This record gives sequence, C-alpha cells and structure tokens, in this order.
Amino acid sequence: MSDASELLAANAAYYRAFAGGDFAAMSRIWAEDGVSCVHPGWPALIGRGAILESYRGILHGMNRVRIAHRDDTAIVMGDDGRVLCVEIVEGAALAATNCYRRVDGAWRMVHHQASPIAAAAEEPETPPPGRRLN
Amino acid sequence: MSDASELLAANAAYYRAFAGGDFAAMSRIWAEDGVSCVHPGWPALIGRGAILESYRGILHGMNRVRIAHRDDTAIVMGDDGRVLCVEIVEGAALAATNCYRRVDGAWRMVHHQASPIAAAAEEPETPPPGRRLN
Repeated sequence: MSDASELLAANAAYYRAFAGGDFAAMSRIWAEDGVSCVHPGWPALIGRGAILESYRGILHGMNRVRIAHRDDTAIVMGDDGRVLCVEIVEGAALAATNCYRRVDGAWRMVHHQASPIAAAAEEPETPPPGRRLN
Repeated sequence: MSDASELLAANAAYYRAFAGGDFAAMSRIWAEDGVSCVHPGWPALIGRGAILESYRGILHGMNRVRIAHRDDTAIVMGDDGRVLCVEIVEGAALAATNCYRRVDGAWRMVHHQASPIAAAAEEPETPPPGRRLN
C-alpha cells in the first residue's frame, strides 16, 4: 500500500475502534509521546494518560456513541501524516483532524480534534472513496 | 532559542498577524504545501489557495476580530511541531491547535483548527507564560 493508503487505513481503524467501543485497540492506536486531543466542547487534553482516560469514559459510557466518518483526505509528509474527515456523531456533522506519526512502520495517532460544522449534514448510505493529497 | 521557544514565537507571530489584520504576514506564516485549516463552524479547507482566501476575508472584513491567545503548550518532534492554546475571540474561549513544519529553519503553519470550549472564559489581563513539552 502507498503511504496515503496506509494512513487512510489507520484512520478507518480509529473509527472502527471508536464505534466498536474497543478501548484496547484505541490505546494501541494512540502514540506514546507528544499526544494531544480536543474533543468537541472540551479544552485540550495533553499527554497519553489524560487522553486515554477520556476515551475510557467515552467508550465505556452507558450510551455507545454512533459515529461514522466520510470524505477522508490524507496528507503525508515523510513520517508525518494528517487526515481531515467529516465525522457524523449521532447525526451531527463534525470537522475532524487526525494527526499521525509513523513509528516503527505503523501510523500512530498523535492528535485528534473534532469541531461542529455549522451546516447540518446527513449520513450517506455509502461513504464516498477517500481523497488523497501528497 | 530552543526548538520549543522558536515554535512558541512562531505561534505568537500567527496571532499578531491575525490581530493586526496583516495578510502579508499571514501568507508568509502558512507553508506552501500540505496545508489544512478548520475555522470554527466551517468545514475543512485544504490547500493554500482556499486557506489564504479565507484569511483574506477574515482579516479584511469590516469588523476586525479581537483575538488573543493564552496557555500555549508546544510539542516538538524533530521538524514537526504543534502548539495547543486557548484563543479568546470576542470574549469566547476556543481550543486551538496550530501545527507547524520546520522548512529551511523556519516554523511554517501547516494546520490550524479552533473549536469552541463549552465553558465560558474571561480574557486575562496579562497572559501567563507558555508551557513547554519536550
């Protein structure tokens, strides 16, 4: 696979872990160092401990979050990768940025931020193919 | 200056250009390639053309945006840098992520995203010193 394909696959794995409530997978996805996360409406979380604690709460909450992603665009510069996509969370559209670093050949997440898009959006029945930039 | 100090200085320069409506400085701050931007409530903008057009509209708008930043935290991994900070825009607090890449010795912005923080915040009279990681 190309760098961009691998990055898009890593991004899909993030949303699979999220949608499936798979905390073990989520902790493997996040890198060890230099990590930050901004959940919608939250202040920034910095450091793996605070971030994983937030995901534990979200993934193990009473109500599983319905989340999907679409319009993934990958930007790769060496071992630094970024995916911009639209998250559909409980029917609402969010603009999400997922930053990755390639560590020992695997793309690990180093930053996540999702913020509400003002315009309403409908979840498509089949997601369009991801775009790739390089 | 250390890498983190240079990165924090680049971040301060971004907000100086923003607050001063300095479009020429803003276009020097943004990198040439691999750039993305999510303004509050907007979908992602990808590519230098779309991003600079958005800043032209924001900076040259009828009403200058009152913007300040505080609680800057720098994360540096090689030539990849990220600053998390709180933006105060017209009195409202936003969680901002500014990603930079070091190009020819200068930190250039490759990604910006700001999203509203649910809790209200007051603008401090004097910004606290930036925190540094790494």
